[in-house]
Amino acid sequence: MSRIGIGIVGGGYMGKAHAVAMSAVGPVFDTALRPSLEVICTTTPEGAAEKARQFGFARATADWRELVADPRVDAVVIASPQHTHREIALAALAAGKHVFCEKPLGLGVAESSEMLAAAEASGCIHMTGFNYIRTPASQLARQILANGEIGAVTWFRAEHTEDFCADPAQPASWRTRGRANGNMGDLSPHIINAALAFMGPIASLCAEIETVHATRPSPAGPEAVTNDDQAQIMCRFASGAMGHLFISRVATGRKMGYAYELHGTRGAIRFDQEDQNALWLYKAEGPEGRRGFSRILTGPEHPDYKAFCLGPGHGTGYQDQIIIEARDFLAAISEGRPRWPSFADGHRVNQVIAAAWLSHERRGWVDVA
Amino acid sequence: MSRIGIGIVGGGYMGKAHAVAMSAVGPVFDTALRPSLEVICTTTPEGAAEKARQFGFARATADWRELVADPRVDAVVIASPQHTHREIALAALAAGKHVFCEKPLGLGVAESSEMLAAAEASGCIHMTGFNYIRTPASQLARQILANGEIGAVTWFRAEHTEDFCADPAQPASWRTRGRANGNMGDLSPHIINAALAFMGPIASLCAEIETVHATRPSPAGPEAVTNDDQAQIMCRFASGAMGHLFISRVATGRKMGYAYELHGTRGAIRFDQEDQNALWLYKAEGPEGRRGFSRILTGPEHPDYKAFCLGPGHGTGYQDQIIIEARDFLAAISEGRPRWPSFADGHRVNQVIAAAWLSHERRGWVDVA
Amino acid sequence: MSRIGIGIVGGGYMGKAHAVAMSAVGPVFDTALRPSLEVICTTTPEGAAEKARQFGFARATADWRELVADPRVDAVVIASPQHTHREIALAALAAGKHVFCEKPLGLGVAESSEMLAAAEASGCIHMTGFNYIRTPASQLARQILANGEIGAVTWFRAEHTEDFCADPAQPASWRTRGRANGNMGDLSPHIINAALAFMGPIASLCAEIETVHATRPSPAGPEAVTNDDQAQIMCRFASGAMGHLFISRVATGRKMGYAYELHGTRGAIRFDQEDQNALWLYKAEGPEGRRGFSRILTGPEHPDYKAFCLGPGHGTGYQDQIIIEARDFLAAISEGRPRWPSFADGHRVNQVIAAAWLSHERRGWVDVA
Amino acid sequence: MSRIGIGIVGGGYMGKAHAVAMSAVGPVFDTALRPSLEVICTTTPEGAAEKARQFGFARATADWRELVADPRVDAVVIASPQHTHREIALAALAAGKHVFCEKPLGLGVAESSEMLAAAEASGCIHMTGFNYIRTPASQLARQILANGEIGAVTWFRAEHTEDFCADPAQPASWRTRGRANGNMGDLSPHIINAALAFMGPIASLCAEIETVHATRPSPAGPEAVTNDDQAQIMCRFASGAMGHLFISRVATGRKMGYAYELHGTRGAIRFDQEDQNALWLYKAEGPEGRRGFSRILTGPEHPDYKAFCLGPGHGTGYQDQIIIEARDFLAAISEGRPRWPSFADGHRVNQVIAAAWLSHERRGWVDVA
Repeated sequence: MSRIGIGIVGGGYMGKAHAVAMSAVGPVFDTALRPSLEVICTTTPEGAAEKARQFGFARATADWRELVADPRVDAVVIASPQHTHREIALAALAAGKHVFCEKPLGLGVAESSEMLAAAEASGCIHMTGFNYIRTPASQLARQILANGEIGAVTWFRAEHTEDFCADPAQPASWRTRGRANGNMGDLSPHIINAALAFMGPIASLCAEIETVHATRPSPAGPEAVTNDDQAQIMCRFASGAMGHLFISRVATGRKMGYAYELHGTRGAIRFDQEDQNALWLYKAEGPEGRRGFSRILTGPEHPDYKAFCLGPGHGTGYQDQIIIEARDFLAAISEGRPRWPSFADGHRVNQVIAAAWLSHERRGWVDVA
Repeated sequence: MSRIGIGIVGGGYMGKAHAVAMSAVGPVFDTALRPSLEVICTTTPEGAAEKARQFGFARATADWRELVADPRVDAVVIASPQHTHREIALAALAAGKHVFCEKPLGLGVAESSEMLAAAEASGCIHMTGFNYIRTPASQLARQILANGEIGAVTWFRAEHTEDFCADPAQPASWRTRGRANGNMGDLSPHIINAALAFMGPIASLCAEIETVHATRPSPAGPEAVTNDDQAQIMCRFASGAMGHLFISRVATGRKMGYAYELHGTRGAIRFDQEDQNALWLYKAEGPEGRRGFSRILTGPEHPDYKAFCLGPGHGTGYQDQIIIEARDFLAAISEGRPRWPSFADGHRVNQVIAAAWLSHERRGWVDVA
Repeated sequence: MSRIGIGIVGGGYMGKAHAVAMSAVGPVFDTALRPSLEVICTTTPEGAAEKARQFGFARATADWRELVADPRVDAVVIASPQHTHREIALAALAAGKHVFCEKPLGLGVAESSEMLAAAEASGCIHMTGFNYIRTPASQLARQILANGEIGAVTWFRAEHTEDFCADPAQPASWRTRGRANGNMGDLSPHIINAALAFMGPIASLCAEIETVHATRPSPAGPEAVTNDDQAQIMCRFASGAMGHLFISRVATGRKMGYAYELHGTRGAIRFDQEDQNALWLYKAEGPEGRRGFSRILTGPEHPDYKAFCLGPGHGTGYQDQIIIEARDFLAAISEGRPRWPSFADGHRVNQVIAAAWLSHERRGWVDVA
Repeated sequence: MSRIGIGIVGGGYMGKAHAVAMSAVGPVFDTALRPSLEVICTTTPEGAAEKARQFGFARATADWRELVADPRVDAVVIASPQHTHREIALAALAAGKHVFCEKPLGLGVAESSEMLAAAEASGCIHMTGFNYIRTPASQLARQILANGEIGAVTWFRAEHTEDFCADPAQPASWRTRGRANGNMGDLSPHIINAALAFMGPIASLCAEIETVHATRPSPAGPEAVTNDDQAQIMCRFASGAMGHLFISRVATGRKMGYAYELHGTRGAIRFDQEDQNALWLYKAEGPEGRRGFSRILTGPEHPDYKAFCLGPGHGTGYQDQIIIEARDFLAAISEGRPRWPSFADGHRVNQVIAAAWLSHERRGWVDVA
């Protein structure tokens, strides 16, 4: 069992999630590599020191370059805002550090392309953080598909819907400024990644992206919203299947509406992250009068479940998804070979987002690169 | 209380449903007009006689012209195949008979346009049969919307999904032959009507329509399927709201997947016909920690419920939807003024279907007439 | 096809349901006997005339003896208050009329015993009305059990819960006066009948019965409530299985909480009347990781469904349960042999109720007669 | 921030859960005391060493006395079999160590009484582990009750149902031997604790306890099962409310059926651990036609949620319940005052179990001590 020095850039929501995951992943999964929490970086020295104390890091800094350069840091987790991803990742890779970068991989295809090239050239392990696909239920869905249990998929529908901007009276904020912080920039990567994970490449798409509430209240009067609130994408997968994606931050009532359904020639799957420990499976077999969607509760037979508990139905949660990511990152480093999803996968997601914007602007179907 | 002579064309599934409805509607709703079951018409004299006996009609015929011409027939219910709708309706209207025509209203916009013109010129009552929108739950949804209880709608998604053609091994049949019998021709009218009922006119749309299984087994070898299996439609309503419709007869696991969701600025609605006695309502009010989708069971407070039972949660079913239609048809005749949905509404649905085909062929957005 | 003269005693909720059922049952089930609505009896001549007009009866009366004596009445449906059941049934049977009596069968075991004896002596068809067990879903549950699909049942839990008396501020009324109108008298028969239908005889039981709200507001001040609000019954079936019943009219939030669950050695069943078109089935077979409760939507493969509609998931409702009862009553008469549930079954339910009261009074286990 | 030395007795399922919790609780909750994993004790030196390595303990032992005596161990978590609880707890308390003991608190009331007395005499912090009541949803349910949001509770029903012994073909094992390992001994404490937490003391009860499968296969032929498979308890709470508990390990299809419902005069609550991130709430307020059970997703407004994630609907899981317990244990030590549930609560649960056995043996109602 070896120690591996971890540096985390970002002390917010995701920074904490990764810090907790690095503390728990060893006992949970009995990993070969054990994280040593070396440096945390946040925006101010005081804040960083405070987070280091709370999360148990040895050192703190407000300068990510210092973190990246730290010789005791072997691997860097980037959990800072999107516009910082590229620069930090490139520097970390240049310094020979393994990099786990939160979704999305940089601000767009140009950045993710550069990041991917640097990662591949570096010989280091690189991963992109798409946590929701890590639930035992969604991993089970991938297994069922891979096994051909529902036959050939003929329809895929998915959504990522939340309502944190649903109230038109909600004031302008960083969330309503800048394309990167918008609905396509912030929410869509998760569900596009899911679409690719379940269905393979998207060949072509036709998208519509809109700012539902054009202005938001601000102390200085109504302020123009400069990014999108919701979007829909019709698509055709390379497999031939038809699909639809919907992404919204104004979906009143939806809290974690990461949901999908797949129709196959021999069965169907349904899932909603708001009930993340259940997968609904329909099999077109047996007598007609006994068929129905089954609510399968996740359990120790399902991927990555039994490290958390031995009993079915006991359930995993959000934090556990991050622990599973940490396990894969450590295992990839330990084994010296990449694990899904790498920067290549993060880049593929960005390509779909770019195609969606292009389609929206052209108001028609476009091929995905 | 007066008698009104009823003739029904069609002795199949829908013909029976309307025959039962005409027998029950009087006692259920205490209608002013009471149906007298005069003539039923099916394809053979023997079959018609048999149906007349079963359903209690006074006379039977295999010639719908005879039914239309019967002086004791005041109102005609057309429950025969689509390609017969136009001719029968025109003849009935010409004979001064009120006409209830099952969806869809003829084979397409050309026919429905002619039917509508004839109906309006006739002075007779005309209705189109869209039964699913008649459930107390869906009527409640319309009330909630009309009251502004969920604010301005920003997103509408709906589907009509069934799986009666999901098995690729299912042989070729009338269902797989001819555009009218396809998914867009047969299933889409219900959910397009729902979209219009909830959201008002569709301004523009972008559709994709496909035959998932290009051939079907037949005794003579694989037979080409000449109509569509599934379709999706992105749309923009005249109200400004964005929407999406999905229609499929190959949706494995779905039996009566007539379902919709509406996101509003102050709330949201969800419904699935497979649980037709419940409407899910979310209100963005009260403390954040007490909000959630409520499962409202239909009850006597809701439209057209209490005629069927006085207790909430007791529930109505498919046949009751047809009884509600019958009530409206009789009331319209009795009051001498049309009730929704008239031929005009059936025609509007056909206009959307036509636009969807056009969009599909052009592979892009089109305006709806 | 022969006509059978029907007389209905009672013009309220249940009287109407039976009147509608008698109008619809012929076309729905193509019954050999066709009801002729001869006489309806309600409490006043005016009211009876009005109901006769609404429901389509030939004659009306405020004297049930007149109805019973009417030579054109062949069969009597008793849908009047419980305390009238015995006298009417005895007179009708004595007059050689077939009798369908709404649950409960008289005011208690003494009455039901007398009614059963008279019915058996009469040679007439006799039935008791327990409509909820008639849904296709509950009939399917009985089939699954009978087939041994869930193995030997080891646990049965059921409830009949509603909330029409849940508000303590609700005034005193006939509902809060007299044991017969209480929770055990009014609600319990349905679910006790279900217990017997699924599980066979109850050998012994231990019950607790209580008046939750001892007084109710009335114009003259608080009025003592003289019947029960809720009750629970632990029981041991003759089969050896353990069970529990809960009955409540103060179950806030429950509208038609007729629900049950059965655990078997090879599977389990769950049902809730508030979603009456679905039966939940778990089979302990196949790989552990693919097991779950399946939501089976009722469809044409299930008992008594396809007469109402040919498509699965289209659903039946409350009124359809009564139509199914009418079909059985007519078929029993036509075939000259009883159909379940007869007066014997109504009497068995009363025996359980009597045992529950005895147990409650003795505060301990008692054997059921 | 101070370190506190932790010793854990038990390296199985629960031992691991507590080890992970002690690793994660600091960063998750920013606790004042930070656990230092000092000693783990399992049954063999080799096994203990292996667990120490996996979980990150400094030392390992197969002798719990050594662990208890270790001067660097300040607090002991007892996660070993029930029959060891008493001896370890007494020794630990005698050594001045704080003690967290997994449920149940010893083998019965005699042991828990002695343990409680020792704990109270010791001045040390003592807690009993009932993890399921720790979910944000169940804590929310307690808040709602405490606020009077559903009025006075008139009915409480709960179950703890699993199916790990449902298959009669399952061989004899330690689970089927000895009362302590039976259904009442092993499963019932959780749900009895829930009953007490929600409703306060149980005044009297009437129970039925049974061994459903009297023998189990073993290599030497059928072996007698010496403990129970399922039990039901009717009870009367000191508050006056009526209740029912059902506990089963042969509940086919149920995986983590820790579920409850409460009917109050102004509302109702429903919960099922198999969907642990949702609480169903019905409020008897607002227009009748808008009432229904709301599915409230847990979120940052709810107890102990936001330490795990800031977004509602993201969800917590089984392991998080144990982290919440660890937080309370550390906080109690840090603050020098007990937190619920203490040994007193563990003892109260045992008193109810004892009363249930007495009632079963007497076949009647008994008062609870």
